[in-house]
Amino acid sequence: MKKVGILMGSDSDLPVIRKATAVLDEFGVPYEVHVYSAHRTPLEACEFAADASSRGFGVLICAAGMAAHLAGVVASKTILPVIGIPCKGANLDGLDALLSTVMMPSGIPVATVAVDGGANAALLACQMLALSDDALANALTQKRERDRAAVLEKNKKVELEFNK
Amino acid sequence: MKKVGILMGSDSDLPVIRKATAVLDEFGVPYEVHVYSAHRTPLEACEFAADASSRGFGVLICAAGMAAHLAGVVASKTILPVIGIPCKGANLDGLDALLSTVMMPSGIPVATVAVDGGANAALLACQMLALSDDALANALTQKRERDRAAVLEKNKKVELEFNK
Amino acid sequence: MKKVGILMGSDSDLPVIRKATAVLDEFGVPYEVHVYSAHRTPLEACEFAADASSRGFGVLICAAGMAAHLAGVVASKTILPVIGIPCKGANLDGLDALLSTVMMPSGIPVATVAVDGGANAALLACQMLALSDDALANALTQKRERDRAAVLEKNKKVELEFNK
Amino acid sequence: MKKVGILMGSDSDLPVIRKATAVLDEFGVPYEVHVYSAHRTPLEACEFAADASSRGFGVLICAAGMAAHLAGVVASKTILPVIGIPCKGANLDGLDALLSTVMMPSGIPVATVAVDGGANAALLACQMLALSDDALANALTQKRERDRAAVLEKNKKVELEFNK
Amino acid sequence: MKKVGILMGSDSDLPVIRKATAVLDEFGVPYEVHVYSAHRTPLEACEFAADASSRGFGVLICAAGMAAHLAGVVASKTILPVIGIPCKGANLDGLDALLSTVMMPSGIPVATVAVDGGANAALLACQMLALSDDALANALTQKRERDRAAVLEKNKKVELEFNK
Amino acid sequence: MKKVGILMGSDSDLPVIRKATAVLDEFGVPYEVHVYSAHRTPLEACEFAADASSRGFGVLICAAGMAAHLAGVVASKTILPVIGIPCKGANLDGLDALLSTVMMPSGIPVATVAVDGGANAALLACQMLALSDDALANALTQKRERDRAAVLEKNKKVELEFNK
Amino acid sequence: MKKVGILMGSDSDLPVIRKATAVLDEFGVPYEVHVYSAHRTPLEACEFAADASSRGFGVLICAAGMAAHLAGVVASKTILPVIGIPCKGANLDGLDALLSTVMMPSGIPVATVAVDGGANAALLACQMLALSDDALANALTQKRERDRAAVLEKNKKVELEFNK
Amino acid sequence: MKKVGILMGSDSDLPVIRKATAVLDEFGVPYEVHVYSAHRTPLEACEFAADASSRGFGVLICAAGMAAHLAGVVASKTILPVIGIPCKGANLDGLDALLSTVMMPSGIPVATVAVDGGANAALLACQMLALSDDALANALTQKRERDRAAVLEKNKKVELEFNK
Repeated sequence: MKKVGILMGSDSDLPVIRKATAVLDEFGVPYEVHVYSAHRTPLEACEFAADASSRGFGVLICAAGMAAHLAGVVASKTILPVIGIPCKGANLDGLDALLSTVMMPSGIPVATVAVDGGANAALLACQMLALSDDALANALTQKRERDRAAVLEKNKKVELEFNK
Repeated sequence: MKKVGILMGSDSDLPVIRKATAVLDEFGVPYEVHVYSAHRTPLEACEFAADASSRGFGVLICAAGMAAHLAGVVASKTILPVIGIPCKGANLDGLDALLSTVMMPSGIPVATVAVDGGANAALLACQMLALSDDALANALTQKRERDRAAVLEKNKKVELEFNK
Repeated sequence: MKKVGILMGSDSDLPVIRKATAVLDEFGVPYEVHVYSAHRTPLEACEFAADASSRGFGVLICAAGMAAHLAGVVASKTILPVIGIPCKGANLDGLDALLSTVMMPSGIPVATVAVDGGANAALLACQMLALSDDALANALTQKRERDRAAVLEKNKKVELEFNK
Repeated sequence: MKKVGILMGSDSDLPVIRKATAVLDEFGVPYEVHVYSAHRTPLEACEFAADASSRGFGVLICAAGMAAHLAGVVASKTILPVIGIPCKGANLDGLDALLSTVMMPSGIPVATVAVDGGANAALLACQMLALSDDALANALTQKRERDRAAVLEKNKKVELEFNK
Repeated sequence: MKKVGILMGSDSDLPVIRKATAVLDEFGVPYEVHVYSAHRTPLEACEFAADASSRGFGVLICAAGMAAHLAGVVASKTILPVIGIPCKGANLDGLDALLSTVMMPSGIPVATVAVDGGANAALLACQMLALSDDALANALTQKRERDRAAVLEKNKKVELEFNK
Repeated sequence: MKKVGILMGSDSDLPVIRKATAVLDEFGVPYEVHVYSAHRTPLEACEFAADASSRGFGVLICAAGMAAHLAGVVASKTILPVIGIPCKGANLDGLDALLSTVMMPSGIPVATVAVDGGANAALLACQMLALSDDALANALTQKRERDRAAVLEKNKKVELEFNK
Repeated sequence: MKKVGILMGSDSDLPVIRKATAVLDEFGVPYEVHVYSAHRTPLEACEFAADASSRGFGVLICAAGMAAHLAGVVASKTILPVIGIPCKGANLDGLDALLSTVMMPSGIPVATVAVDGGANAALLACQMLALSDDALANALTQKRERDRAAVLEKNKKVELEFNK
Repeated sequence: MKKVGILMGSDSDLPVIRKATAVLDEFGVPYEVHVYSAHRTPLEACEFAADASSRGFGVLICAAGMAAHLAGVVASKTILPVIGIPCKGANLDGLDALLSTVMMPSGIPVATVAVDGGANAALLACQMLALSDDALANALTQKRERDRAAVLEKNKKVELEFNK
């Protein structure tokens, strides 16, 4: 199975990344995690991106905050789909990272998820890989069922409290 | 080859959609286009999403403006990757559609591109399909080269004017 | 008397919902509360909305955060008035939920109240039901008087402290 | 049938109001329109609100721009449901009017619709009145069908162009 | 000497008001403080405004949060200068109150100060009253000197630490 | 009678200034207009501010766009009340000028009006001068009446069209 | 004299660049202009940045719109000061480019000027070069005088019209 | 070596300033720190700026919050490059200071860094001084290497945890 490559611009983004790896672990999707900064280790980031396809990666996830350039820089070096997670920094509530990630100019798309959306980034990666992996597709469908059941369970508790 | 399903919430989004279909035409990727509103024809939107996988679609693109719910509604009915294009409306400069599309809660990701980013949505769809289609992957790589050449061409003109 | 249907997208919205149910309890207005997610249990949400009128509901209140689609999805399935409460999430201070709820396209209105405005959502529901319920109308008028008295009471304390 | 009272803060809001009256005309819902400014003719605005219920009004719609106080001022004088339309002014893209209208403090709700959302304000008013008017409820349901048909019609045209 | 009238929309605004009264106390400017809500006790707010001039007030200060209508409502009932203090609420960081206060339509100005700017509101009131009160003008000039001295004092400490 | 000093940071602000001078002309309030930039002619701006009181000015109005520092710089040099008009520039819809003008730190208030609010700035200046000028106060009261009459006139036209 | 290197991400940024080159021409500062995209020709952009110092450049100016990564990418490859010009795109009024340019993480600064601020970017470059070039410093001082004179000239015209 | 002049508008900005002085200490770049308010001690701020060049300063750094005018006021009095640090205040998340600092009108640039970006301001100052100081240039290049190594070190730890 193709692997998911996960890059974060700084290890302060680890809590967001752990939400992603938890999802990938749940689905048994192989992955690698790296701290590669678009600005402090651009070489490593670019090399990783350029070699990603030949090294067996199918999707790349990039998490970064503030003027979040990592996803865009990586996307410019590969035609693998790149998923961007805008991370909330100390100021501006993640709006800076969101706009820096999603507003990519024509030619180099970044598939952007919500601010700090680590779990959804991983799910989106799985959905892409599932295009040619029926087992993964089934697992994703089953997770939808489990999510549905979890909401219904919560609903039951709430109904018990409120609806007499 | 798997098809790309393109939904728009209103036919006022057609100019954005044409940017997407132009890219798909360029790559010879088959697609279908529909006007299905999340609110006015939710049934059609949901049925299309639910059947998309079995009808041969691999990726769905949803374009909508204002409180743009189409991509989220569609994403909740399929595990195919769903790409959201936030469309600029008469007010608020597209910020409403952007936040309504990208800030999806955990469990149901939408791969969001820039406001009115029709071309990038199509490119992203191709990148996903290229995961299991080497010819398409090659075509995408070649387009990157063409884009690069186009920028270098523009650079030459600018250099001629400014750098003597 | 017609009932108020209260839906929340996630049980994390419960604190906001409790502000609504407290108001409805105060006025003796019957209600039901459910956790129905627009994305994880869309079926339940849609069915509830579609049957709401025949099941004796008069107004629906929907609370959701982030890309808050619940109110819009519900509104598309009923002609009962739907009140939307945008809930503040971890980021962006509720602006995402506010725009996702209020900027509905023409044809499907959502009566939006302030971010986390649980009490006002319930009051608004009561005001709608009071259109055909004089006792409730009187109760609402009396609450206005009580609110007025409470402010005047606070005013008295402040006047005692400051105005000698 | 109860009437809809429509107030605008300035006659520059007329284009938005005409979208509302067109909807009311379509449904045969009686209404009155007035230009009452929260700041320049507060007396008239307040008197209208205070007497609205006894004069046969069931719902009030208030449209205003900039620091849009009209809906809030009117809502403080009546327990009829008040619908607020934030109108886009020369600057700030309607965000000023939106926040001034929707962020009402606890006790005095304003049912806010989208910026310049005249049609939806009227539809929402109809939905409230339809709570005790089955004919109007039927008309609203039929309009939903017509809206649905209109989208499907547009869909057909788009399908003809794109899907061969 | 003319008095300063201080109104707050809710006693939750008291911390901001205390910053204002501390300044007025410092200058010996007489004032009255009231809790009058634009929405819950509009009558009291309007009567206070209408009678303010004849009751010896020269300037009015109004503090309110969220959809802050108090300053505008008061300003519409008097030609005394009205100073608005936008108060930060639980969400949106005071932007709602700022826009609701400052974006007044032509004809009814509100002299708006910074979010939670209680001290500056009082200083501005003093500056207005000082137009016909030389002693107060002198006191304001002296305060400027004291402020200047305080900054220079802080500067000295910082210089001692950093500049050797 | 004390004069109103009007400064603009650039002659591109003239359309906003003309709205102010039209109001002052209407009330016969004497004024001076200058183009003094906070950054390009700071000396002139500061000298004007420092001498304003002794030269017979009672209120200063400062209009500027972008990072609008003029009002703050002027306010730091005088204890006369300074009214700031944030002017909309080519980008950001006036939000930059609004925040640069209104968010003054404690000690140096600027009485801020709406973006491009030239007329209200002049009215506010008149209201301040009217504190010691009964004729001007009467004139302001009469203008309120005229404004009220104008709205009622517009109301009549609208009523004639809509309410039969 | 060291040269100024000017990069733009797309030739659509040319109008902004021309404002910069006009200033450099005025001061006789040598420069080169290139169209190098951070995403479409990253190699050229990075190589230019890496060699800039040895090729005789002293300051680099980078103009880009949307998710403007060019300045950051260039800044990561050189220790020459990099000036970023955020360019307004079709949506969001330049806020996306502003935040993408200015909110650089610690370690790699970008000296950001106003949205579309081509002239100021060039002036800032000159000010940096003038640190070791007295003639340029003198020229900059003289330009300040000319700017001052131009404002005073405009002031005179305005005074003639308004102050009689 | 030329010195760096550091001004802060209030000693509440000290934590941000310490991040700047730590960087300058690391590089052995001489500096002076002062608390000079644009509004409370404008004279000192202006005099410092006017004399800065002749007193041996090469770059000025100005940190201020809210309506941050300090950098602009200082920049208007010197042709030395002025770096602005927008400081986050109690409200609005630093957006007020950012726009007040960066949106300077043509003629007087301020080199703006990220909100609270003390370290980057100092690095930028060093980069400017390094234009004529090869030793400093080397030191900056080495710091880039150290930063790079630090990221790679963090990368190693993360790889050890995640990639087995």
